[in-house]
Amino acid sequence: MKLLRVGTAGRERPALLDPEGTLRDLSGLVADIDGTLLADEDALGRIRGAAAAGDLPALDTTGLRTGPPLTRIGKIVCIGLNYHDHARETGAEPPAEPVVFFKAPDTVVGPDDTVLIPRGSLKTDWEVELAVVIGRTARYLESAEEGLAHVAGYAVAHDVSEREFQIERGGTWDKGKNCETFNPLGPWLVTADEVPDPQNLSLRLWVNGELKQDGTTAEQIFPVGEVVRYVSRFMTLYPGDVINTGTPAGVAMGHPEPKPYLRAGDVVELEVTGLGRQRQVLARA
Amino acid sequence: MKLLRVGTAGRERPALLDPEGTLRDLSGLVADIDGTLLADEDALGRIRGAAAAGDLPALDTTGLRTGPPLTRIGKIVCIGLNYHDHARETGAEPPAEPVVFFKAPDTVVGPDDTVLIPRGSLKTDWEVELAVVIGRTARYLESAEEGLAHVAGYAVAHDVSEREFQIERGGTWDKGKNCETFNPLGPWLVTADEVPDPQNLSLRLWVNGELKQDGTTAEQIFPVGEVVRYVSRFMTLYPGDVINTGTPAGVAMGHPEPKPYLRAGDVVELEVTGLGRQRQVLARA
Repeated sequence: MKLLRVGTAGRERPALLDPEGTLRDLSGLVADIDGTLLADEDALGRIRGAAAAGDLPALDTTGLRTGPPLTRIGKIVCIGLNYHDHARETGAEPPAEPVVFFKAPDTVVGPDDTVLIPRGSLKTDWEVELAVVIGRTARYLESAEEGLAHVAGYAVAHDVSEREFQIERGGTWDKGKNCETFNPLGPWLVTADEVPDPQNLSLRLWVNGELKQDGTTAEQIFPVGEVVRYVSRFMTLYPGDVINTGTPAGVAMGHPEPKPYLRAGDVVELEVTGLGRQRQVLARA
Repeated sequence: MKLLRVGTAGRERPALLDPEGTLRDLSGLVADIDGTLLADEDALGRIRGAAAAGDLPALDTTGLRTGPPLTRIGKIVCIGLNYHDHARETGAEPPAEPVVFFKAPDTVVGPDDTVLIPRGSLKTDWEVELAVVIGRTARYLESAEEGLAHVAGYAVAHDVSEREFQIERGGTWDKGKNCETFNPLGPWLVTADEVPDPQNLSLRLWVNGELKQDGTTAEQIFPVGEVVRYVSRFMTLYPGDVINTGTPAGVAMGHPEPKPYLRAGDVVELEVTGLGRQRQVLARA
C-alpha cells in the first residue's frame, strides 16, 4: 500500500494512493498515519480490505498539498557515510560500523514544501536517501533478517545538510542536520510488502533539472536489515521511528571548487524507485 | 511553581507541589504538562490563581510514583563539555563554541525510575545536569537575554552515558547517549520566575552514598541564555523542547583506573539547588 497524508500543514488527513493512481480518503477508517497505526495489523488489514472492496471514497486532488506521510515521529536516526561511492567522494574511509546521528522530528516537512536555507549558511547541500519506517519495537535484535522484520515501510527522505554547521563548527554533526525544514519526507509511505528488495532501489536527485545523484542501495555499506539490527543494540526503536539510511555519491560537497551549494530559488527534485518523487524550491530563512 | 506529573508510567496526571510541600491535583484544570501548556500564559495564570485561592485538591501521595515532569517533548538538545572543570577532567580543550548532540525523548523516565545498563556495556557513566525547558518558539535569537526570555523553567536531568558507545564506536556521540532509560528527568519543572539566577545553582551526585560530583553552574563555559541563543541559530526551539546544559567534573570517566563505572545494583542520587532530588537503582537491560 501507498499511504500518505494530504492537506494543509498540521491538518493533514490520511489517504491511500490506489494501484490505478486514484487518491482514496482513509479518514473514515483511521485517525492518522503514525506509529500506532503501523503497529496495528488489524487496522492495516481493515485498510487493505476496504481498498480491495472499493469502499474508500475518492479524494479531489485539486490544489491538495501532500504532507509528510507519517506523524508523531518519535526520533529520526540517520546513518552517515553508508554508501561506498559517497564515502569515497568525501575522502572518508568506509566506516567499520555504522555512523549514527539524529535529526529532530520537527525538521520534517512535506515532499514538495519549501526548504529554507538557514541564515548565515553558505554550504546548504542535498542528500537523497531511503527512509526506513519502523513498525515493531526493536531491542537488541540478533540478525539482519530480524531487522527487516521490524520494518513497516519505506519512503523518500531528503537529508538536507549544512556542511559548515555540520563539520566546521565543533563537535558532532547534529548542528548541520537540524535546521528548520531540513527533512522533506514522502510523498508516500510504501508498506514493506511492496518493496521486496530494499537493496535494489535507484536513488536520483536533480538540481535545476541537472542530474546530480544517480545511485543505488546496492552500494550501501550496511544494508537496511543490518542497520536496524545495529541501531537496536544501542537504542530502542519504536513504531513510527524513522531511519535515514544514508546518501549515495553526488552531493555538492563532493564536487570540485567552486562547490555548487544550494541558493534561494534553486529547485531540487529527488526520487527512489517505487517510492515517488519530491520537488522543493529553496528560499531564505 | 513546581509542576510535576504523578502516576504509573504513561498514565501520569498533572500536579503542583505547593510551598507547604503538599501535592495538589491539577487534572481538573489542565490536561497535562507539555509544551502547549508552557506556551499558554493564560493557563499558567489559572494554575497560579487556583493555587493562591486554595482551590486545588490535595493528592494522596502514598505509593505514588513521580513521572517525568513534562511529556510530548519534541527534542532534547544536549551541550557537551560545558563546564570548565569537566572539560579539564576529560583532557579536552574548552570548546570554542557549544558542542551539540541529541538525546531522543523516548529515553526520558521519571526521576526515581530504574536505569538500565545496556547489554554489552562496561562503561555506563553518570552526569548530573541542569535541564532547561523552552516556553516560546526560538529562532535566530540575537542575545543571551533573549535566550533567557524563552525559558519556561528548569529541572534536574541525569544524562546517563555509555562511554564506549559514545567515544570508541565511531562517529558522533549519539550512540552512547540514547540507550533506553538514559534520561531521568525531574522531579519537578520549576518555573523560571523561581530560578532568578540559573548561573548560581549547585549540582551534586552521589553513587552508593559517596559524593562524586559537586559543582556549580557558575562553572558553565556557555551560560543558559547564551546556550539558548546559540542553539536557536542552528535549529528552531519549540515550547516543550529540553536542553541538557552539560555536567560538572566528577564523572566515572574522569577517575583514575580502574574507573568506577556503574553496575547493576548501584544507587545514584542527584540534585540541583531548588529543583529537587532524583534516586535511581541500576539494573541490567
